[in-house]
Amino acid sequence: MTPPPPRAPADFSINQMTVKQLSLPELVTACADLGVRGVGLWREPVQEYGVEAAAKLVRGAGLTVTTLCRGGFFTARDPAGRARALADNRAAVDEAATLGTDTLVLVSGGLPAGDRDRDLPTARERVADALTELAPYAAARGVRLAVEPLHPMYAADRCVVSTLTQALDLAERFPADQVGVCADTYHIWWDDQAPTALTRAATTGRLHALQLADWTTPLPHGVLTGRGQLGDGTVDFRFWRSLAESAGFTGPIEVELFNDGLWAEDGREVLGETVRRYLEHAC
Amino acid sequence: MTPPPPRAPADFSINQMTVKQLSLPELVTACADLGVRGVGLWREPVQEYGVEAAAKLVRGAGLTVTTLCRGGFFTARDPAGRARALADNRAAVDEAATLGTDTLVLVSGGLPAGDRDRDLPTARERVADALTELAPYAAARGVRLAVEPLHPMYAADRCVVSTLTQALDLAERFPADQVGVCADTYHIWWDDQAPTALTRAATTGRLHALQLADWTTPLPHGVLTGRGQLGDGTVDFRFWRSLAESAGFTGPIEVELFNDGLWAEDGREVLGETVRRYLEHAC
Repeated sequence: MTPPPPRAPADFSINQMTVKQLSLPELVTACADLGVRGVGLWREPVQEYGVEAAAKLVRGAGLTVTTLCRGGFFTARDPAGRARALADNRAAVDEAATLGTDTLVLVSGGLPAGDRDRDLPTARERVADALTELAPYAAARGVRLAVEPLHPMYAADRCVVSTLTQALDLAERFPADQVGVCADTYHIWWDDQAPTALTRAATTGRLHALQLADWTTPLPHGVLTGRGQLGDGTVDFRFWRSLAESAGFTGPIEVELFNDGLWAEDGREVLGETVRRYLEHAC
Repeated sequence: MTPPPPRAPADFSINQMTVKQLSLPELVTACADLGVRGVGLWREPVQEYGVEAAAKLVRGAGLTVTTLCRGGFFTARDPAGRARALADNRAAVDEAATLGTDTLVLVSGGLPAGDRDRDLPTARERVADALTELAPYAAARGVRLAVEPLHPMYAADRCVVSTLTQALDLAERFPADQVGVCADTYHIWWDDQAPTALTRAATTGRLHALQLADWTTPLPHGVLTGRGQLGDGTVDFRFWRSLAESAGFTGPIEVELFNDGLWAEDGREVLGETVRRYLEHAC
């Protein structure tokens, strides 16, 4: 028989997406059983459960909500689409404030669909424009915006911000307590300039979130659900973690896996295995 | 009925992989019919046909071999694997010289397989070491080495050189007439630093090859065979072409598509359509 899963270290946080097969109450119970003190939540399951009720549930269990995922998708060209995106992001900020998390993760959005738009620089500027409107609104509610670069393979259809350097350059147009970055090893591990950017973000107080996922191949069709369990791939987690911490990062570290295989397993076992892998590969 | 395909412009070159369903003689005939004056060849089909015979065939048809694809795969850690890679690359240089092309395209190779190697910087240095041995051998035979960065989604299993800036930094350790870069829009289109690198490569005589392919989504399983026909995706070909030419690039421009859909069609029709798309989207 397998040994009981170890207790989670204090800085470990589980992103809800990793074990999305668990209901919110199941997740809270599983975290309590394993000593997990932090959770990264997603808007859709929280809205389903009720934002106020979710806030009460996690607060009652003594859990810290390390991030809310996710806002963003700012690249619409038409005024109506832009207004809808800003309204939705204000709602996301309000939800983050209600949940008591200080960090809303933003994914910029890809190239505007349907119009054969090939203009990445302009799409990236639309993201900056949106942040100008959203950052003060979030700051007034005690919420920081964390711009997350996604792997360049998502540049066309999901996120025109493709490197940590780009995300940090964008964030640095705003005060550090308003806009920072979310660094996920899955998206940045390949980038020889990412270590410098991560150090710069941590030393300037702009590393608002640090997430771990491993890189495994072959990539699945659509490349969305192949994020590897820690230790199954090519990412050196100790390297990235020690780099951030030696630059002054003291925040929680989220494990966020999008993985069809893990979603098909028992969620409580996946959480226990994720804690074990974290201790083995990131500590 | 569809109009007859237009004649290919003088700088157009078809990479053999785009129409790999055509035999070498069929490709040569199709090029003659469409006025295509350049072909990028691949080692495997050329070896199958016979290198000398292939050289005679293309020379007899007045075709220019714009590149030979491909050498590289320099990241083995064991001395035996490294020796095998160097020997194979010397053979590739000899084949390029026999075919009368001045450019051998190199793909660096991914992380060494099977040993859970997570050390990208060391793997990248192995590429530089190999170039130190290979560049003079190639130069003595009139062959330039073109280091091709592949999209970061291939960093683990195929190519640890992930950006044009990285490839150019690597090339600049060697004389410009010995080592340069191959820029393929499919791999670099997302990169906000690639325009600067492309200009730097062209102005310094290190842009040894320029290839076009479009970026389309969703990506297929394994992400190898989804390179889009020109105009089907998000790449602005006129931007990249004019950038290179305004920086002094005067070489041929290859269209290299890995696309299961196109491979299932009649190769001659694909070649005609590729010329049409080139005129429509890159001229």
